[in-house]
Amino acid sequence: MPENYQQYQEKSSHWFQELQQKICHKIENYESLFIKKGLKAKEKPKKFTAKTWKRTDPLLPPGTAAGGGEMRILKGHLFEKAGVNFSAVYGLFSEDFRRQIPGAEKDGKFWASGISVVIHPYSPFIPTVHMNTRMIVTSNKTWFGGGADITPMTADFTINQPEIHRFHQVLEGICNRHNEDYYVRFKKACDDYFFIKHRSEARGAGGIFYDYLNTGNPEQDFAFTKDVGVGFLEVYSEIIEKLMDLEWEEQHRQEQLIRRGRYVEFNLLYDRGTIFGLKTDGNVEAILMSLPPLVSWP
Amino acid sequence: MPENYQQYQEKSSHWFQELQQKICHKIENYESLFIKKGLKAKEKPKKFTAKTWKRTDPLLPPGTAAGGGEMRILKGHLFEKAGVNFSAVYGLFSEDFRRQIPGAEKDGKFWASGISVVIHPYSPFIPTVHMNTRMIVTSNKTWFGGGADITPMTADFTINQPEIHRFHQVLEGICNRHNEDYYVRFKKACDDYFFIKHRSEARGAGGIFYDYLNTGNPEQDFAFTKDVGVGFLEVYSEIIEKLMDLEWEEQHRQEQLIRRGRYVEFNLLYDRGTIFGLKTDGNVEAILMSLPPLVSWP
Repeated sequence: MPENYQQYQEKSSHWFQELQQKICHKIENYESLFIKKGLKAKEKPKKFTAKTWKRTDPLLPPGTAAGGGEMRILKGHLFEKAGVNFSAVYGLFSEDFRRQIPGAEKDGKFWASGISVVIHPYSPFIPTVHMNTRMIVTSNKTWFGGGADITPMTADFTINQPEIHRFHQVLEGICNRHNEDYYVRFKKACDDYFFIKHRSEARGAGGIFYDYLNTGNPEQDFAFTKDVGVGFLEVYSEIIEKLMDLEWEEQHRQEQLIRRGRYVEFNLLYDRGTIFGLKTDGNVEAILMSLPPLVSWP
Repeated sequence: MPENYQQYQEKSSHWFQELQQKICHKIENYESLFIKKGLKAKEKPKKFTAKTWKRTDPLLPPGTAAGGGEMRILKGHLFEKAGVNFSAVYGLFSEDFRRQIPGAEKDGKFWASGISVVIHPYSPFIPTVHMNTRMIVTSNKTWFGGGADITPMTADFTINQPEIHRFHQVLEGICNRHNEDYYVRFKKACDDYFFIKHRSEARGAGGIFYDYLNTGNPEQDFAFTKDVGVGFLEVYSEIIEKLMDLEWEEQHRQEQLIRRGRYVEFNLLYDRGTIFGLKTDGNVEAILMSLPPLVSWP
């Protein structure tokens, strides 16, 4: 690993925490605005509850620090369930994983920090979103990864819906500011990844997904990773503002609950992060925070 | 394969269809009784809807018959979702599966017939049940497999609850009539199988689970398989009659929706049949009929 990447461990870890704070603050403000607008005037706006956790590493001596994280969850009226998790963990990969993770073959050492966000709004007209960015360090490789994608919950929302178009447009702008090849590559990677094979359908309307990003210029890779987080928050804020007052019918809610079922199918059957986390004794509560609050398989 | 097992293909396939009929008839009767008792007096009792499907085998020439099945689903007031599926399929396993399935190494030929039942009652006080029995034939091996297990949906139900005890007792009686070793073995296999590893908790209160059953006496193995189906239906009928009139509160319903989430986690992350089916282009609608109608991850 080139020395100059190392200093970005602390920087990126701080950034992921700062971004967690920014996102939670914004979500709470919209939750509060929604109440004030009078639709649920008698209710008190809901806030995030936070829970910190410490990790133990089965391959390190008992009592050895192995990092941890902070999960934050809000169960509100505008946002039925919003989960914003930060973590910074380190330790040793098991023999099995050493072969799968770049640069970990030799000694299995790893360090990983990231933020993971999944927001399930109550309104079927506000799309669900997912954003995750991370920095990973193994003995021989270091990289950034992550992405953001959007999942409309009713059939009225197509790829041509202005809000979906705007989401893609903002991500495209961020990509283009860093590298003109990024958007095409990262958009395709997202479409390929968030595909529900057994149903031959996309999980949602896509976004961008990147992994193993190491251009040799850590400042630039870190800046891109920060921009993805900031851009995601900005464009989702726009979308919330445009759609939060739309009224919906029971039929839309039913449609949303069924589409959420597809989300669950993807996360439990195909999502690498979920399966990786659950099979490596990760924090179950944090990992499964992505699952929607109410789901239907009628 | 000893010749005398072959004649049981037709017999077992007929039996699975007959059992499907019996189970659906009984479930419809209880649904009807529930309405007549006046709790939902204005409603019309719901019936099963049936849908037949034909299978195509990607390894056989197009148009070649490869079996199929009939799925039946009831969405009622006593039973929020009851799925009763029959199938009889045959064809060629892919190279990958040939290595995993006993007796299929040589040419990949297989024949399989079975019934699969998952019942999700509306009342949180009536446990969810699962029963599946099947006969499988490959070029060099033939066997019966299956089992039945029960999942209470509220914490009030423990292993000592009389209804759970009765469920186990009936299965134990069936096992003992055939072989005094069966119950201990099949009960343990069930507990081992229906275990949610990432939560270190059982999916439910267990039952029995058996596979690769070939004692050399097909008549006896078939009789055991039939008894499991009949016994399951009898004991679940008893349980329904005892619990169908119990009134429950919203808090019990919430508890049930959360417990159903565990059921989904198990089925999508660990259940061999579900994963096998989805990854071999099985009938998605039939395979995922086991998923609960409404689920919560709060």
